[in-house]
Amino acid sequence: MALGLSRDDVLRARERLGHSVRKTPCLRLQQLEGAVPHKVWAKCENLQWIGAFKARGALHKVGRLSQSERERGLITYSSGNHAQAVALAAQRFGTRAQIAMPKNAPRLKIDAVRRLGAEIHFAGTTSLQRRERALELQAESRGIIIEPFDDPDIICGQGTATLELLEQLEEAGESVDVLVIPVGGGGLLAGACLATQGTKLRIVAVEPVGCDSMGQSLRAGQPTAVGPGPTIADGLKPTVVGQLNFEIAQTAGVECVTVDDQAILAALRALAERAQLQVEPSGAAPLAALLTGHISVDERVAMVISGGNIDPHAFWAER
Amino acid sequence: MALGLSRDDVLRARERLGHSVRKTPCLRLQQLEGAVPHKVWAKCENLQWIGAFKARGALHKVGRLSQSERERGLITYSSGNHAQAVALAAQRFGTRAQIAMPKNAPRLKIDAVRRLGAEIHFAGTTSLQRRERALELQAESRGIIIEPFDDPDIICGQGTATLELLEQLEEAGESVDVLVIPVGGGGLLAGACLATQGTKLRIVAVEPVGCDSMGQSLRAGQPTAVGPGPTIADGLKPTVVGQLNFEIAQTAGVECVTVDDQAILAALRALAERAQLQVEPSGAAPLAALLTGHISVDERVAMVISGGNIDPHAFWAER
Repeated sequence: MALGLSRDDVLRARERLGHSVRKTPCLRLQQLEGAVPHKVWAKCENLQWIGAFKARGALHKVGRLSQSERERGLITYSSGNHAQAVALAAQRFGTRAQIAMPKNAPRLKIDAVRRLGAEIHFAGTTSLQRRERALELQAESRGIIIEPFDDPDIICGQGTATLELLEQLEEAGESVDVLVIPVGGGGLLAGACLATQGTKLRIVAVEPVGCDSMGQSLRAGQPTAVGPGPTIADGLKPTVVGQLNFEIAQTAGVECVTVDDQAILAALRALAERAQLQVEPSGAAPLAALLTGHISVDERVAMVISGGNIDPHAFWAER
Repeated sequence: MALGLSRDDVLRARERLGHSVRKTPCLRLQQLEGAVPHKVWAKCENLQWIGAFKARGALHKVGRLSQSERERGLITYSSGNHAQAVALAAQRFGTRAQIAMPKNAPRLKIDAVRRLGAEIHFAGTTSLQRRERALELQAESRGIIIEPFDDPDIICGQGTATLELLEQLEEAGESVDVLVIPVGGGGLLAGACLATQGTKLRIVAVEPVGCDSMGQSLRAGQPTAVGPGPTIADGLKPTVVGQLNFEIAQTAGVECVTVDDQAILAALRALAERAQLQVEPSGAAPLAALLTGHISVDERVAMVISGGNIDPHAFWAER
């Protein structure tokens, strides 16, 4: 396994995190029967602190920095949930956070980062521009850059979501055949691969059409950049998956599927109307894969609902 | 206490219900800090089966009928969550359900009742018309009418939500000063009064302005009907609270406050934007009471989020 990471590292991440993250609900979604033929469980990371699993990785990573490193302040670049996660970690550890965000970031995300006390530095509209701004901030302040996904401590932190899910299923006397995970940079996926080592779980990675860097990378045998194409799943749009994330997914034999915006929207509606869950488009991608026949009908499925950060007023008024 | 009901009856209801209802999450909503000055916990009955606490009462009531009674079929009248709850109970116990619903019921609620296999009988637009139709259905079929709130088994079933909440707080090593409950017919409230017997918890009932039958009843010393006035909280609009519900609330010394639609909408937005919770307007009424200064700032608050059944597309597109 890449860098020698294993399930034990995820177990240790969970010990370190302790009660600093929420044990999110794992819900059996019987209400989806009729919409999909599967028996479905959902790990509700939309109810994690800051509304997404990203809190796990950031709190784990920042917790492992030395006191003197943390005192230099945190820096990151993100248009979304990782920004809030790093802001939360800075608040919890009593240090400064500087976040490079796109000029066109939604009001909701800007407000959330500000409420957590982080400084926002607006920088263009592309991921590259944000990363450049983060490097400038680092040169100015000597702060520590918290990478969004290509980092072993981030990966192991995200893996604790899957670890909890497996334990919650076991406590309920249940088991599943397949774990369906949305993929942007691949942090949640790589963490899931580590957490499920030693089980027979099949792991299916879901990417939006045109944003399938993981799928293309696994076929090419090396990290492969994509456009990325337009999608409503704004959390699943990194140009290229992480090197480490790719290696872990390759070793684990992950399968990749793609879903289009129509399927993601249908999944979002089903989750809202039938299961009363507020999910962001990225978090609905696994159900979109079920709705479009990517998972055999006789399989029991656990899906990770990665986040719930939408502005429902703005989002639904546009549909 | 009215009819001799007590906390023991709620404990017995919980034993009877067993795992047939969900132990819903009890979440500490730190994310609301800044919006409200209180330390707030939420009992998420929006994530209960059928998206509302009503499943508890209906499953408890129907479970206590004799086999021969159940075989005669269930009948109820409701524009909302009680319809789905009775449909669910009929499905679980393998009997027929006939539901009198208003002609103008939203598509989402009609679909949900139909998915659960119940028969819908459309009857005018008022509560009185629905009740008349239910009585006709009973005359035709000899089915059992499942009352929405004025029934000891319904009340004790709803009380299990508060029982769980108190236990979840205790397990987390926490306690609260005040429990804030949305009130329509008073089933959830009466159940909460029973479940909290022997504690020092203050219970605050929240009603929409113009729909304050419980508040007026407690001031008048007897059940008092209201208009009811218009409100977006469609679950909190019964004309008059239940006799039994009133008596239990009176004995418990419940305090009543009212909130307007503006406050309810602000609460809904805060729950969606800050806590990623899909809540229906009725379920947001307790937070509306906090937002409008009805609860002392130094109090620790638990609120019951009674339901999450909104059609987000239809709801938010109108705002």
